[in-house]
Amino acid sequence: MENRIREGDYVLLFLDRKRTYLVKVEREKTLHTHKGFIELERLIGKNYGSRIKSSMNIEFAALKPTLKDYIFKSARKTQIIYPKDIALIILFSGIEAGSVIVEAGTGTGALTIALAHYVKPTGRVYSYEIRKEFIETAIKNLRRAGVEEYVELKNKDITEGIDEEDVDLVVLDMATPWLVVPHAYKALKGSGVFTSFSPTIDQVVKTVKTLKEEGFTDIMTVECLLRRMQVEEGRTRPETLMVGHTGYLTFARKILR
Amino acid sequence: MENRIREGDYVLLFLDRKRTYLVKVEREKTLHTHKGFIELERLIGKNYGSRIKSSMNIEFAALKPTLKDYIFKSARKTQIIYPKDIALIILFSGIEAGSVIVEAGTGTGALTIALAHYVKPTGRVYSYEIRKEFIETAIKNLRRAGVEEYVELKNKDITEGIDEEDVDLVVLDMATPWLVVPHAYKALKGSGVFTSFSPTIDQVVKTVKTLKEEGFTDIMTVECLLRRMQVEEGRTRPETLMVGHTGYLTFARKILR
Amino acid sequence: MENRIREGDYVLLFLDRKRTYLVKVEREKTLHTHKGFIELERLIGKNYGSRIKSSMNIEFAALKPTLKDYIFKSARKTQIIYPKDIALIILFSGIEAGSVIVEAGTGTGALTIALAHYVKPTGRVYSYEIRKEFIETAIKNLRRAGVEEYVELKNKDITEGIDEEDVDLVVLDMATPWLVVPHAYKALKGSGVFTSFSPTIDQVVKTVKTLKEEGFTDIMTVECLLRRMQVEEGRTRPETLMVGHTGYLTFARKILR
Amino acid sequence: MENRIREGDYVLLFLDRKRTYLVKVEREKTLHTHKGFIELERLIGKNYGSRIKSSMNIEFAALKPTLKDYIFKSARKTQIIYPKDIALIILFSGIEAGSVIVEAGTGTGALTIALAHYVKPTGRVYSYEIRKEFIETAIKNLRRAGVEEYVELKNKDITEGIDEEDVDLVVLDMATPWLVVPHAYKALKGSGVFTSFSPTIDQVVKTVKTLKEEGFTDIMTVECLLRRMQVEEGRTRPETLMVGHTGYLTFARKILR
Repeated sequence: MENRIREGDYVLLFLDRKRTYLVKVEREKTLHTHKGFIELERLIGKNYGSRIKSSMNIEFAALKPTLKDYIFKSARKTQIIYPKDIALIILFSGIEAGSVIVEAGTGTGALTIALAHYVKPTGRVYSYEIRKEFIETAIKNLRRAGVEEYVELKNKDITEGIDEEDVDLVVLDMATPWLVVPHAYKALKGSGVFTSFSPTIDQVVKTVKTLKEEGFTDIMTVECLLRRMQVEEGRTRPETLMVGHTGYLTFARKILR
Repeated sequence: MENRIREGDYVLLFLDRKRTYLVKVEREKTLHTHKGFIELERLIGKNYGSRIKSSMNIEFAALKPTLKDYIFKSARKTQIIYPKDIALIILFSGIEAGSVIVEAGTGTGALTIALAHYVKPTGRVYSYEIRKEFIETAIKNLRRAGVEEYVELKNKDITEGIDEEDVDLVVLDMATPWLVVPHAYKALKGSGVFTSFSPTIDQVVKTVKTLKEEGFTDIMTVECLLRRMQVEEGRTRPETLMVGHTGYLTFARKILR
Repeated sequence: MENRIREGDYVLLFLDRKRTYLVKVEREKTLHTHKGFIELERLIGKNYGSRIKSSMNIEFAALKPTLKDYIFKSARKTQIIYPKDIALIILFSGIEAGSVIVEAGTGTGALTIALAHYVKPTGRVYSYEIRKEFIETAIKNLRRAGVEEYVELKNKDITEGIDEEDVDLVVLDMATPWLVVPHAYKALKGSGVFTSFSPTIDQVVKTVKTLKEEGFTDIMTVECLLRRMQVEEGRTRPETLMVGHTGYLTFARKILR
Repeated sequence: MENRIREGDYVLLFLDRKRTYLVKVEREKTLHTHKGFIELERLIGKNYGSRIKSSMNIEFAALKPTLKDYIFKSARKTQIIYPKDIALIILFSGIEAGSVIVEAGTGTGALTIALAHYVKPTGRVYSYEIRKEFIETAIKNLRRAGVEEYVELKNKDITEGIDEEDVDLVVLDMATPWLVVPHAYKALKGSGVFTSFSPTIDQVVKTVKTLKEEGFTDIMTVECLLRRMQVEEGRTRPETLMVGHTGYLTFARKILR
């Protein structure tokens, strides 16, 4: 059965929402948690979705990691774009298998993983990153998520130009997106999509202004607030603390001059 | 060039955000708007992203429709799930090319289009709908979005059971999702994802309760608020009116007993 | 009993949330609604909270108008500040009976009514308004709310200076609040409160910058989102449409140089 | 001058938003902070709004505490109702000098302080609290805020009945507000206001249902989201973390049978 865990597979060991472990199943490897340890070899041959007990007799669920899990686990260190924002970028930009995407900056690759996931197997993500130290982490994360081959990481400054042409989407998560707008216009196909994620209003204002000047249309800026609910009969309520802001998302489409 | 508009293609004629026209390019067909008419034949051979003037000399942009455009245009009549919610369902459920999905109800097919878009060409969406009158509209919308062949519409009551097995995702947008939870458990693969969209808290409470009883884990309910910004130097602000609520999204994963 | 309706009193005739009528009870006066008419004389001698039927036999509740009702009814034409924002201004500024307040601009007097309500009988509101056409409406609204005597309306441009001294609160709802900050500093007592309501981010940025330069402390900007719930057993949910933005509120306190 | 600090006054020593100290000015008393100590005697004779340096040469502002400061400082231990919610209760209930209020439960007195502040000097707050251990803290907080004499604390269970009559407002912050609705109806004047603060939806549904049964009208439930902005030229944005939920506020008015 294809739903069985094999050696070399990734598994998400799930205790509760805040305690999940993304592990590669290897013989003679052990996961140590404060709820006991688990020899990962024991997972081989089990179905995804099985339960497995730790040395302290605590039950974990052995889930098949999904895209979202790879994103979360990749975003840990410089968590800027949240899955909610990635979700909107994916759907609103209309990318699909075969799309050609230019991205900057790569960061730890959280967004890159999602982009690659949706353009594979025939599309490609060209991801620019000036900070060399991020590239190694990004490669590791892309490899773990199984999308490394669809991505070309470029240690280049995108404000100096984009090498690619006939691109379907240019997506930016960087400090000065407005500097890239003219390059994005050149790189995009007619009707192609520009997207930018920016934490501050000032970045948005400059970017939108440049988009208007450069000949983009259908310019739209949104922010997305995600609120978790605590659901229990007789005690249902939104959770007390929430992330009140990650960033603004700006979308636009290229029209030909 | 593949980016040229050909006869039979769909084009989104864009005047402004609130006035967009999704048309099929055919000879001897004319789009009539209050800003003049456009003979669609004139679009043939132009690049996507070109401008075209109406009889009143008003400029429209001839954009290539994206998934989001097909969704919006399909959702018009019974607009329940919004693109923001569809975006979260897609990303959080982790579906991809090849995934097998069970959906109910189909409605006008807005969510169905998105699901099919992401599972094609090797996956499949089985979509249940009891209201016969919706099925015709759904077929029309799926065909227009070019995803008809990846969907099987079923005029059946999903609360009576799910025919499919080894399913990756069960996604529900219907009045009584909790009645489907036991069927979803049977239909799903181990570690498979359950998702439900519900406007009221009461639906959420019943669904979550049943999910816990049936052996699902990683149960999470969220709501997503999307706020548009009006961006203009010196006058930037969130828009006055917003959609304050569409529905709650509940996610869960099957663990084996 | 003091809770009886007398001739000359104001009564809020309440049909439902969207259909309320603030009337002055006078003999030989009739309220005409699309649900029939009511001779107001019939209200005399009834208790507040009584029901009264219209000529079409539809029941209205005869409620005693509260501050909020006077605010809502005064804000109709140029409704900028919403009661939720007024509520925060009142509480966060700490005003009370006896406080001395400078306000600009008066507009139709919605905020003025609230300020006067809380500083009476020993305090005073000095309200600046350059647009002469508003002053008449403001007077009418203040009179109806019974707070006219605690307010001094000034047809003056506050950006040219504030006449008053030793003021407890300066509160601004106008296009260029930052131009008033130096005047506010002079007018306020040490430790006095500055408050400003602005729809756009740009206004907020300029105002906060000036507040820092002029020697204010405890500077805080917030926005308040109010969401109505539709509460009904089995169908409880937030309302679909909401006001997504009215304006930002900035608060600061004067420290002596 | 009345704006000078005298012995026995309360002063808010303000370092930054998160480090504020509400002290009573007494001779031979010293405030110790991690930024050095301040002999409080030195404050006597200074104007409110003055700066004062600690032993480590760090500047504090000596602000006059406002109602909001007393509320915040009183709410520390069992912070349930937030100032934003108190603000809406005050404004939407229309209370003023002279109003008669019944409140339950008192808790640490944060809401009680605000209610007393606005009904003084001629009104009165009757505050019910079953948990004896809270009453002492509440008294301390009321005394510090200078409103003790306008409040009558009652160590009684309000679900067993309300002693008062002809009340303007009944306001509840307790686990089972619906049990008090019939008592509130009896205690209120015609047209009087009922308000309830509840963290969970379930409490709201039960309360609203009982309000409808008992003959209340103008029933409205809202929730208030307060979002702080970080305002700085070139870096303006909403703050990352926010309080996503405190509770729902329900308002209603009594109509006579």
